[in-house]
Amino acid sequence: MAPRGIPEPVLIRGTGLLGTSIGLGLRSAGADVFLADPSPSAQAVAVDIGAGRAFDGDLTGPPDPTPADATADGAPGSAPGAVIVASPPDVTGQVVVDSLLRFPDAVVLDIASVKVAIQHEVDAAVGTGVLTAAQGARYVGTHPMSGRERSGPVAARGALFTAAPWVVCATESTLAEAVGAAEEIARVLGATVHRMNAADHDASVALISHLPQIAASLVSSRLQETPASSLALAGNGLRDTTRIAASDPQLWVQILAANAPEILRVLYGVREDLDRLIATMEDPAAPGARLDIAQLIAEGNAGHARIPGKHGAPPQAFALVTVIVEDAPGQISAVLQDVGEAGVNVEDLRMDHSAGYEVGMLEISVLPGRKQELTDALTARGWKVV
Amino acid sequence: MAPRGIPEPVLIRGTGLLGTSIGLGLRSAGADVFLADPSPSAQAVAVDIGAGRAFDGDLTGPPDPTPADATADGAPGSAPGAVIVASPPDVTGQVVVDSLLRFPDAVVLDIASVKVAIQHEVDAAVGTGVLTAAQGARYVGTHPMSGRERSGPVAARGALFTAAPWVVCATESTLAEAVGAAEEIARVLGATVHRMNAADHDASVALISHLPQIAASLVSSRLQETPASSLALAGNGLRDTTRIAASDPQLWVQILAANAPEILRVLYGVREDLDRLIATMEDPAAPGARLDIAQLIAEGNAGHARIPGKHGAPPQAFALVTVIVEDAPGQISAVLQDVGEAGVNVEDLRMDHSAGYEVGMLEISVLPGRKQELTDALTARGWKVV
Repeated sequence: MAPRGIPEPVLIRGTGLLGTSIGLGLRSAGADVFLADPSPSAQAVAVDIGAGRAFDGDLTGPPDPTPADATADGAPGSAPGAVIVASPPDVTGQVVVDSLLRFPDAVVLDIASVKVAIQHEVDAAVGTGVLTAAQGARYVGTHPMSGRERSGPVAARGALFTAAPWVVCATESTLAEAVGAAEEIARVLGATVHRMNAADHDASVALISHLPQIAASLVSSRLQETPASSLALAGNGLRDTTRIAASDPQLWVQILAANAPEILRVLYGVREDLDRLIATMEDPAAPGARLDIAQLIAEGNAGHARIPGKHGAPPQAFALVTVIVEDAPGQISAVLQDVGEAGVNVEDLRMDHSAGYEVGMLEISVLPGRKQELTDALTARGWKVV
Repeated sequence: MAPRGIPEPVLIRGTGLLGTSIGLGLRSAGADVFLADPSPSAQAVAVDIGAGRAFDGDLTGPPDPTPADATADGAPGSAPGAVIVASPPDVTGQVVVDSLLRFPDAVVLDIASVKVAIQHEVDAAVGTGVLTAAQGARYVGTHPMSGRERSGPVAARGALFTAAPWVVCATESTLAEAVGAAEEIARVLGATVHRMNAADHDASVALISHLPQIAASLVSSRLQETPASSLALAGNGLRDTTRIAASDPQLWVQILAANAPEILRVLYGVREDLDRLIATMEDPAAPGARLDIAQLIAEGNAGHARIPGKHGAPPQAFALVTVIVEDAPGQISAVLQDVGEAGVNVEDLRMDHSAGYEVGMLEISVLPGRKQELTDALTARGWKVV
C-alpha cells in the first residue's frame, strides 16, 4: 500500500499545522508515519487525529550516528527512511543537521518558508566537519506553499496541499534519491512540484508571499483606532486586501527575520514609491503631481496583470456572471444547479456582499465564450442576472 | 409607478459606470430618468442600454437661473426635480454649482468618493454670492460605496448598489427635502443609508478605501519585473491583497488628489511603521528586533479583527467547511444542493485554488453551530470534507 519512491517509515519532526497535515496526507496514501514534537501535547493531538504513530526513538540526547539509536527499544523498522523537518522556522536548520547526523540512512527534507538560510546551515556544518559531504547531500530544502491564516495541529487537514505549489530546492550536490523522495511526497499530497534554486525561491516569496503579508499588516494596523461607524462602510476591497493580516505573529516574525535580505530589497522599493507618493500628495496641485499619482496606479495595473489565474491561465481570462441571491438556505445551490444543468463549468466563484443587508451577489466566473449562454439560461429560469 | 420621495424627472449628469448604473436602477424602479454626458458616445451607450432618455435641455451655455432654460424645446416636464451629478471627481464641484444655478427648483446630489472638497466648493459659491444660501441648501453630498475595478457605461448594472453602503453627508443647512430625496434614491437602488458628516466620511474612506487601493498598487507595482516562474507560485494571499490594483488610474488620481490631507495623515502612519520595520529588519539579530516585528503583525491582527463581517456580524463569526471539488460542470452545484438539502444556510462562499491543478477547494462559511452537522451530512453523501 505504501507509495513508491518514499523511503519508509517517514518521521515528521514537528506537529504543527503543516507537519500534522503532511502526516494525515501520507497516512491516507498508505505510508507508515512516525510523529515527534518537543511539545508532548502537540504530538498527542497529532497522533489522536490520525496523522501517524508516536516516534519511539530518542531525539533528545546528542545525535549518535549509529542506526541502533533509532531502534533503542528494539522495535525493528522504526529507523526512518525519510525525515520531514516541520519545526518552527527558527530551529529548522538545527533540526535538519541533527536529523542528518542521527539517521545516517535517511533522506532529510524541511518545509520552512525560507530556504537559503537553512541550506547555509547545512553547508556550514559540512564546512566545519560536523557533517560529512555525503551526509549533507542527503538534505533537500522544500517549501509547500499552503500557509493559512490559522495554525496548530487541530487546523490540520490531509488535503491542505491539494493543488498548491510545492517548491523543491536541490543543489548540485543533492542526492538524486533525496530529490526523488521530496518530489514524490509532494505529488502524493496532491501538490504541484516546482524546481527552483534556494536564492530564486527566497527572492520569489519575498515578493509574492512576504510583501503581501507585510502590506496587509500595515493596512490593518491603521484600523486599530478607527471608529466602528467608519468600519461599517468596509467593502470587499478592504476585506480582501487585509485577509492575511490575521496571521500568526510568532510564525511570521521567524519567516520575516529569516528572509530579511530579500525582503529588505523589496521594502526599499516600496518605501521609495511611498515617499514619492507622499511628496506628490503634499502638493497635489504642483506640475506633474497628477501624472505621478496616475503612474503609481498604472504601475500597479501592470504588475497585477502579470499574476497568473487559475490553471496558470492569463489573469482576467474569465467572464463574470453575477446573480442576485436571497440569504436563505438552498438559494446558492439552486443557482448553481441551474448552472450545472446549463452545462457550463464554474471556473471561480465568490460571494460579494456588504454589511447590513440580507442579499448577496454570487459572482460566477466562466469561460468568456459561455457568458451569454449562461446569462440567458439563468434569466430564463427566473434568476436576476445583473 | 414612480417611487415616492424622489422628485422627478431625475437628471443624471455623467454616464460612466456609476451614473449609468443609477439610471438603470431608477428606471427599473419606475422613475423618469434623463441622461447627459459631455461625451456624446458615452451618453448614447447609456441611453441604448436603457438607463434613461437623452436630456433635451441645454447644459453647455452659462447657467441661466430660469426654469425656461430646461424646457427650451418646449417639452413640458423636462426640468429636473432632482439632479444626480455623476461626473468625474475633478469636475464634480463645478457641475454641482452649475446644476444648482441652472435648475433652481431641483435638489442636487453628487456621488463622488470624496465629500469635503465638494461641500467647500458649494459653500465658497455661497460665500462669494455666486449662489444664494437657499440655493446651496438644495445640495447634499452622497457616496455610494460600490466602486469596482472596472469602469464605463458598458460595465453598468442596475443592481450595482444592492446591499452596499450609501453615505449621505448632510450639513446643518441642507434642506430636509434634499436629504430625503438622496436617501430615497439610495433605498430604491437597494443600498443601506449611512448618515455621516463630510469630514468623518473622508477620514473613513482614506482608511477603508484609499489606503487599501494604495497598498494594492504598491505591492503590485513590485511585480512588474518578477520572473513568471516566481509568479507561478502565487496563491490566494497575493491575489486577494492585490485584486483592486486593477483599478483605473484616471479615476484614482482624482480621488487621491481630492482627499490628499486625510490620506497623507494615514500614509504618515504607514511610513512610520514601514521605517520601523525596515530598521528592524536591517539588524534582525539586535535585541528587541524580533519583538518589533511580532508587534507589527500583532497590530495587524488587532486592526483586522475590527473589520465587521457580513450583516455587520463580528469578523470570523462563521465556521468554515471545506469540500474538495473536481473541476467539472455541476460539481459545485451538486455540493451546494446537498448543503441546501441539509437545511444549512451558506453565509459566505469562496473557491480556493492555485495554478496548475484541476481540483478546487470550496470553502463554505456557516454558523458555527451548524458546522458539524453540515460536515456529517456532506461526508455521508460522499463528499470529501477536509
